[in-house]
Amino acid sequence: MYLKKKILDAVKDDLTKIEQALAHNLNPHFELVRRVAGHLLFAGGKRLRPLLMVLTARLCGYKGKRSAADFAAIFEYLHAATLLHDDVVDGGQLRRGQAAAHQVWDPPTAVLTGDFLLARSLSLAAATGLPEVISVIANITELMSQGEIRQLAHKGDVNLSEDDYMDVIRCKTAVLFRGACQVGALIAGAPGPQTASLADYGFHLGIAFQMADDLLDYTQDTAVLGKPAGADLREGKLTLPVIYTLQRATPADRQWMVGLIQRQEFSAAEFGGLLGLLERYGGVAYTRECAARHIQNAKDTLRQFGPWPERDTLLDIVDYAWSRAA
Amino acid sequence: MYLKKKILDAVKDDLTKIEQALAHNLNPHFELVRRVAGHLLFAGGKRLRPLLMVLTARLCGYKGKRSAADFAAIFEYLHAATLLHDDVVDGGQLRRGQAAAHQVWDPPTAVLTGDFLLARSLSLAAATGLPEVISVIANITELMSQGEIRQLAHKGDVNLSEDDYMDVIRCKTAVLFRGACQVGALIAGAPGPQTASLADYGFHLGIAFQMADDLLDYTQDTAVLGKPAGADLREGKLTLPVIYTLQRATPADRQWMVGLIQRQEFSAAEFGGLLGLLERYGGVAYTRECAARHIQNAKDTLRQFGPWPERDTLLDIVDYAWSRAA
Repeated sequence: MYLKKKILDAVKDDLTKIEQALAHNLNPHFELVRRVAGHLLFAGGKRLRPLLMVLTARLCGYKGKRSAADFAAIFEYLHAATLLHDDVVDGGQLRRGQAAAHQVWDPPTAVLTGDFLLARSLSLAAATGLPEVISVIANITELMSQGEIRQLAHKGDVNLSEDDYMDVIRCKTAVLFRGACQVGALIAGAPGPQTASLADYGFHLGIAFQMADDLLDYTQDTAVLGKPAGADLREGKLTLPVIYTLQRATPADRQWMVGLIQRQEFSAAEFGGLLGLLERYGGVAYTRECAARHIQNAKDTLRQFGPWPERDTLLDIVDYAWSRAA
Repeated sequence: MYLKKKILDAVKDDLTKIEQALAHNLNPHFELVRRVAGHLLFAGGKRLRPLLMVLTARLCGYKGKRSAADFAAIFEYLHAATLLHDDVVDGGQLRRGQAAAHQVWDPPTAVLTGDFLLARSLSLAAATGLPEVISVIANITELMSQGEIRQLAHKGDVNLSEDDYMDVIRCKTAVLFRGACQVGALIAGAPGPQTASLADYGFHLGIAFQMADDLLDYTQDTAVLGKPAGADLREGKLTLPVIYTLQRATPADRQWMVGLIQRQEFSAAEFGGLLGLLERYGGVAYTRECAARHIQNAKDTLRQFGPWPERDTLLDIVDYAWSRAA
């Protein structure tokens, strides 16, 4: 909690500007669209992605007329768009502790509002006037949609490999983190190697962040998550702790897990039994190790930058991501 | 049919290049994505939108290194993306005479494939290197999603006004036609007034085209439409022939219509009765008149161009749109 407070104190003004930018740039033609989009957008997200863009832009000496926070809204809109679509796709009921938009309205409205937010983020990208920024954003959205399709195609697939898993979390999470950092550097006109380093920082942070998220689903309860624990498995979504365990379990244990996964529903006792296997075969520990490696990589990429406050906050964010997994 | 053949003969080479560009630029990271996207994309669409871009680009003397057809794929991808989402939203079963993608796979896959095609079109837009083009595309996608949300919110609303209807068809159809023509002019580096005229041409053509489409739903049968007649009303979608008639019908006739609309299902005899009212109160004739006005506007905007073959084909396309409504 100390780490979280330290970060929040350091970026207080940035977060205020980001909140303003999110409201200011929403600009729908129809009032209803503002309501639906606002339901998720202003339900208290962490704003991590726009924050990464603002911090990397400032680290690279951004001096543009328009506030970096304004452009940073791109990444929260994009994130919100994918959450809206993901919740429709997964049938997720809760999001940020409240009813998902497709529950409050209906799935079609949630799909179309996601489309609008995606388009809005692209309009903002176009407003940078930098074709490179636009290519990055377009590429992110391509990969994210494909990652989700892939995940869907592999729903309940007990033979999913670690490589498949990495491919999916790269597409669905890491490319957005990478993009936020890359675009921060690009709008500041940073030299190529700096931009590449910050892109790498975002990538490794994103991978570690997703692994931590996947672990949380087995280590935290509903109150902390804002959604029921074990939700991933109930949706047939196999993550690294389970994949690793399936590969190492005895035939009997594996068969028991496969049965659980294929039913897609389980009692608290069964879930407890599963957690026991994830610990026993090292699925949880292995995922932590992998996350730790990416955490270290993310930190290493920041070495070339001087001891600026932004660099320190970016390092703190890495530690924060790690604290969620540890 | 003569008109259609004349147009097809004139643009034969363009259509070949457009088909090649659609396949060549699809480029998904995962093979499954190609299959889902290809299901709709290569089911024999008219390619009207990319064709408009190619023709307007050539009319404005486009001389770029990359083929205009390559960029024109933007508009077919965008169109396909919205069809995929619309079919999920409306629960449409048939599209281009075959099962809709959300029927062959599932709604989530159709949603995500739509996202991918949308993103792909934006990557292509970014490849033009023209921020103006990207802004146009982003704006189109914003308006289209909002038009659909609006349409959804007004589902079955028997008090929908003609202005509401115009607002929806502007957003959901005309802005894409306008955008295709505008981008054709932009990539050719056409002067502002020419670009504006071609944008207007596209806009009026789009409005007339949508009105013709809305009329067809009351004047053609399943074999011609590739989907059941009266489908709009079954989905609670009120179009101009119905809106106009509702406003002019006697209280008794209006009440009968309202009952039909609210039930969202009707026998062939009831549908026949409805058609009678649309004729008697002039709903069909009025929609034709409106379409005719936009047809004329579209033609007028082409006057400033010399007698180039592209101009003549653009005029033929207007007549073709009109022939569908007449």
